[in-house]
Amino acid sequence: MANLEALQTSTKSVGTLTASSRPPRIAVAGVSGYAGGELARLLLHHPALEGTKPTFLGRAGEAEVGPSTSLEALHPYLTGPGAAESNPVYSFSWNRIVDEGIEVLFLATPHEQSREWVPEAIERGIKVVDLSGAWRLQETRNRDVYRLKDAKPALADELQAEAVYGCPELHRNAIKRARLVANPGCYSTSMILALAPLVQAGLVDLDHGIVCDAKSGVSGAGKAATTKTHFMYAADNLSAYNVFGHRHRGELLEQLHLDSDQIQFTPHLLPIPRGILATIYLRLKRPTEPAAISAMFSDFYRDSPMVRLYPTPHLPQIQHVVRTNFCDIGFELAPDGKRMVIVSCLDNLLKGASGQAVQNLNLMCGWKEQEGLL
Amino acid sequence: MANLEALQTSTKSVGTLTASSRPPRIAVAGVSGYAGGELARLLLHHPALEGTKPTFLGRAGEAEVGPSTSLEALHPYLTGPGAAESNPVYSFSWNRIVDEGIEVLFLATPHEQSREWVPEAIERGIKVVDLSGAWRLQETRNRDVYRLKDAKPALADELQAEAVYGCPELHRNAIKRARLVANPGCYSTSMILALAPLVQAGLVDLDHGIVCDAKSGVSGAGKAATTKTHFMYAADNLSAYNVFGHRHRGELLEQLHLDSDQIQFTPHLLPIPRGILATIYLRLKRPTEPAAISAMFSDFYRDSPMVRLYPTPHLPQIQHVVRTNFCDIGFELAPDGKRMVIVSCLDNLLKGASGQAVQNLNLMCGWKEQEGLL
Amino acid sequence: MANLEALQTSTKSVGTLTASSRPPRIAVAGVSGYAGGELARLLLHHPALEGTKPTFLGRAGEAEVGPSTSLEALHPYLTGPGAAESNPVYSFSWNRIVDEGIEVLFLATPHEQSREWVPEAIERGIKVVDLSGAWRLQETRNRDVYRLKDAKPALADELQAEAVYGCPELHRNAIKRARLVANPGCYSTSMILALAPLVQAGLVDLDHGIVCDAKSGVSGAGKAATTKTHFMYAADNLSAYNVFGHRHRGELLEQLHLDSDQIQFTPHLLPIPRGILATIYLRLKRPTEPAAISAMFSDFYRDSPMVRLYPTPHLPQIQHVVRTNFCDIGFELAPDGKRMVIVSCLDNLLKGASGQAVQNLNLMCGWKEQEGLL
Amino acid sequence: MANLEALQTSTKSVGTLTASSRPPRIAVAGVSGYAGGELARLLLHHPALEGTKPTFLGRAGEAEVGPSTSLEALHPYLTGPGAAESNPVYSFSWNRIVDEGIEVLFLATPHEQSREWVPEAIERGIKVVDLSGAWRLQETRNRDVYRLKDAKPALADELQAEAVYGCPELHRNAIKRARLVANPGCYSTSMILALAPLVQAGLVDLDHGIVCDAKSGVSGAGKAATTKTHFMYAADNLSAYNVFGHRHRGELLEQLHLDSDQIQFTPHLLPIPRGILATIYLRLKRPTEPAAISAMFSDFYRDSPMVRLYPTPHLPQIQHVVRTNFCDIGFELAPDGKRMVIVSCLDNLLKGASGQAVQNLNLMCGWKEQEGLL
Repeated sequence: MANLEALQTSTKSVGTLTASSRPPRIAVAGVSGYAGGELARLLLHHPALEGTKPTFLGRAGEAEVGPSTSLEALHPYLTGPGAAESNPVYSFSWNRIVDEGIEVLFLATPHEQSREWVPEAIERGIKVVDLSGAWRLQETRNRDVYRLKDAKPALADELQAEAVYGCPELHRNAIKRARLVANPGCYSTSMILALAPLVQAGLVDLDHGIVCDAKSGVSGAGKAATTKTHFMYAADNLSAYNVFGHRHRGELLEQLHLDSDQIQFTPHLLPIPRGILATIYLRLKRPTEPAAISAMFSDFYRDSPMVRLYPTPHLPQIQHVVRTNFCDIGFELAPDGKRMVIVSCLDNLLKGASGQAVQNLNLMCGWKEQEGLL
Repeated sequence: MANLEALQTSTKSVGTLTASSRPPRIAVAGVSGYAGGELARLLLHHPALEGTKPTFLGRAGEAEVGPSTSLEALHPYLTGPGAAESNPVYSFSWNRIVDEGIEVLFLATPHEQSREWVPEAIERGIKVVDLSGAWRLQETRNRDVYRLKDAKPALADELQAEAVYGCPELHRNAIKRARLVANPGCYSTSMILALAPLVQAGLVDLDHGIVCDAKSGVSGAGKAATTKTHFMYAADNLSAYNVFGHRHRGELLEQLHLDSDQIQFTPHLLPIPRGILATIYLRLKRPTEPAAISAMFSDFYRDSPMVRLYPTPHLPQIQHVVRTNFCDIGFELAPDGKRMVIVSCLDNLLKGASGQAVQNLNLMCGWKEQEGLL
Repeated sequence: MANLEALQTSTKSVGTLTASSRPPRIAVAGVSGYAGGELARLLLHHPALEGTKPTFLGRAGEAEVGPSTSLEALHPYLTGPGAAESNPVYSFSWNRIVDEGIEVLFLATPHEQSREWVPEAIERGIKVVDLSGAWRLQETRNRDVYRLKDAKPALADELQAEAVYGCPELHRNAIKRARLVANPGCYSTSMILALAPLVQAGLVDLDHGIVCDAKSGVSGAGKAATTKTHFMYAADNLSAYNVFGHRHRGELLEQLHLDSDQIQFTPHLLPIPRGILATIYLRLKRPTEPAAISAMFSDFYRDSPMVRLYPTPHLPQIQHVVRTNFCDIGFELAPDGKRMVIVSCLDNLLKGASGQAVQNLNLMCGWKEQEGLL
Repeated sequence: MANLEALQTSTKSVGTLTASSRPPRIAVAGVSGYAGGELARLLLHHPALEGTKPTFLGRAGEAEVGPSTSLEALHPYLTGPGAAESNPVYSFSWNRIVDEGIEVLFLATPHEQSREWVPEAIERGIKVVDLSGAWRLQETRNRDVYRLKDAKPALADELQAEAVYGCPELHRNAIKRARLVANPGCYSTSMILALAPLVQAGLVDLDHGIVCDAKSGVSGAGKAATTKTHFMYAADNLSAYNVFGHRHRGELLEQLHLDSDQIQFTPHLLPIPRGILATIYLRLKRPTEPAAISAMFSDFYRDSPMVRLYPTPHLPQIQHVVRTNFCDIGFELAPDGKRMVIVSCLDNLLKGASGQAVQNLNLMCGWKEQEGLL
């Protein structure tokens, strides 16, 4: 642990961000993608950041980004009312980050880059919210799907151990103090929030197993033009993919403390731009009244402004969460009081990515959790 | 059984349709809906019906249909190349049906009307393919969801007992001899075809239960303009509905011989015009090789031209079945050889309704099962 | 004019809204529709209205709205983080409006109701922003399409003469002083903003005529479930309608001072939820350089924060204006310097309805025009 | 002309295809694209080709196609009921074409390849229907947009002069005798068929000019995954492109015998898979009754089974032509009897490409024009 101790000593203390009366200096790397664009939008409109501007950066080796790129050229819907307000987008460079005194770095970058850049940022005393999958998983066997390579394995191990899974509803206090927040996956968020109250209460029959059937809009597949993101493939279609093998699976296991055979998850590609709906099937250990379940959920999310609970038997729909940072949750119980269906919805680019990242920033800065997100 | 015997004697013998060298005289009632329109299209292009024209009829009390209505006005995509070929649509009347010597009547009508009209047709010696849910279910408790009332309960009971569930892949021979074919539900077809081979082989762990997560395009909700069929509700959205309570559930129980707690099914409304995809979760009783499963499916559907099996781990998609009469089936097995996901796709208006109805007609007439459907 | 004088004397003076240090008391009638919902959303988040809440009302005879209706039940995407913050929606009543001291009334109501209610509101000293077509047109022959009937014709005539067409880019100063703002039509806004700079400059060859080919998303057709708003009609489709006869045509004639045969406009129904794109074809009187046109547009919209001009030959698209209050305008000139195509885009529910209504409120209250709209 | 004479002598005589009692041997090159797939589907189901199978070939240098490729793998919706019926797709080679005695070659290939391959095919005595833009335009200045290079310029010039523009409604007799049919562009077909009757009758005020505002589904942009075919770009969007400069423009000029400034055409990208709708604006030279216009259209298309005329003021819609080979045409006249709007719809992959190609084949073979297309 020696290395890490030294590292911590060499960096700003944990309280920095909140102690200051001014907002932190923020940079967003990987701003050209969908998550990057949403992050830029949220930060530019964030009330606590009024009067400041984040620094916008590309990802490594990105041709699209250069000296004359603007945020508005990459994401025309962000254009403000005048050319004078256009926001430059720079190639990624540590020099710029250091020169500008960046204190919080958002990484909306591929997982390989995130794995490489996080230690470099932390060593420079910069806090990180990483939107990739690079730091979400503690167990090596779960992380293997990402095929990550570390330049300094020991340091990486220490940072990994320190990384906080950025689900405010589960790890609110740890996030407040974190140097490295691993922002959760979009699918994972929808399922973890639906399951955590009942699983933590020990009410779910785990021997029977949990089935998660999840469906996501096309923005979840990223901005690259591929066979599967072609309009002719995605439109008027529905397809299942990565059955038994989606990368977000490990997050379910670790965050819900489940064994590999206790949960299974099938993602599907929906013919819509944004939104996830997960339909979750489970059995309770003993017959339970719907009201008791509702009370359990309400209790669990009492202090969580971004989770909306539907009174049973009302169920959430994608249309009501799109372009919001809410995760909407509803459920139905079979007459036997044991078989249960939970439906959970969120916007994959907001509560499933950039909105949750800002929620984490809010916690790290001591602001209201929902600041700039309603 | 006396009544039924009399009835049978008074009607044309079972062999009539096939014995004749000419095609049967056909009527379609309820031709204004989506299923009715597809049925009209298929029958007008059916090679074995060349040179004949079905009689097209409305449903009871339908304002849209009258002396001057044409099929082309109801379904403009059916318009042929010349006005001279326009097809009249008449108000429903038994006189017309009898006068025209109708031998096969398709009912694309609400279940209440189907329940009322089927006995009247059979008494007149007319064979029926009924596309509603009125005659699909043998057990009263399953049929209760339709709240059916019978004018002649004893006759209805006898006809119900005689009705053949119109799934050619399961009841091919009975359909050939049937007077009353109860055409299956769209959701049911997708799930029954996916499950029948394994359930019949006794390979499925039924104590563990089967989970069916099914998604359908909007045409499944019918032509009525409602809150849920409004473009602004359905587009860019996904919603679950009728959890634990969809009407097609009874068909699963009866056709797969399952107890109520052995299977559950959640339908969802997809933002697409046509198509169903069902994702089915089950456990096998013992670890099995994928190849053994594939062999079992191939064997079961050897003589079924309308089922297409995908080599594992390839999975079907909605886009490849839309506007076809195929049911496409694929599966994946978990490494444990027990947990299994089956994906089944079809077009809800074709294999899920009108295409399957024509497939049944083909069997009843002794034609090739896929005639007019490729 | 006697009546109007009396009316003006009996009402609050024009300066009331801006003189006060507190925000005005606001009501929205017709909050259940799409425009009403967007209006509610904008007003609830308006910085200058912080700490206040509008009164939300139904339209006349609306079954959906009653003692226990909430805004959140009508528009679930508006639900805030807690049940305590739910907003009631009341049946429309003048008693409530008077009791609550309403100073500005938004009418998102059918034109017949708007025509009836506006005089009643003005007589009570309440300023009105009316989103219907009831008060937009000064010439009787243009207004005839609405078949309006006035209880007090003389008063109606006077109010009509006083009504200000609520296009801030054209009538900014008059709006600031108006008691009655007739909020423009969605199609009209997109075309008037595209044409006004060149038409006012006398540069357009009006003898040749202007062709406007406009396309709108389905929300423009309203919330009623009809044949044309059915998903199966609108999806995967495009249709032209009301050729030569759309109601918004009169606004073009009056605002651009054109004769009836100098402009024609064909609306189309697009298979998308929101957004309008108008493609406009005209000839200039003399060959002109693109740069001169650009300068003319920039000059015209110098003080208009909600119009974004694209540098030629870049053209705006619907995706970049959806959920914004911007009207985006771009153009191309043919090599002859005379034939010109202008493309204009906006969100029909925002700049085409509720956003523009709030823009008008901002002007009436002396706030920044874009307040609460970025 | 010497070369051409020699060429003609060396090839099969014009009557070959129709004189034979057996269907011609057919190959399709470029079968992997959307047009190629639709062509394969139509030919496999063509009644006059029953018992035969076309030879399916890739395009030059296509990685997707190889020894083990099947048509069904490229276009899964084409899969027949059994693996035994799978259709191989070969790399393009003249040896195979000659060995199999191919008599008609369809080229669904890029225009550069079509320009190169057509002379090679004709020299081998093979008739060609070319779906690219390579041979549609007689005037060099119009053809320049394709930047074509000819290995044997003189031969290319002769073949170009001989090429018949494959619009059966305009050039039926020439197509019957053609060795080289240049299948029209999708946009062009929709506009030419709408305009030809009135323009040929000299009724259109050409000095005033014609405006064509055309909108196409995404399949028109081809199968390549690009920024503009990405679901996130195309969905929920509408955009204009290639104003004043689309390649199909030259076809309008040549087929309608118009000068460059007499017609202008703006294409738009619609958020749907298939279909084109063109809204056409023109002025008649003198006031005319709608009935006279209708009569003119009916007369012009009396023997054209693939054109459907709508009785004014009914207008066609995309939904009714999708997956048909029809071009639907309707119009409205302004009260002045001079200003006119014509709406024309077709499926860009059928009447706009592969369906029209089969229509041309039918003519070349002496079959009914609509054979296999209804």
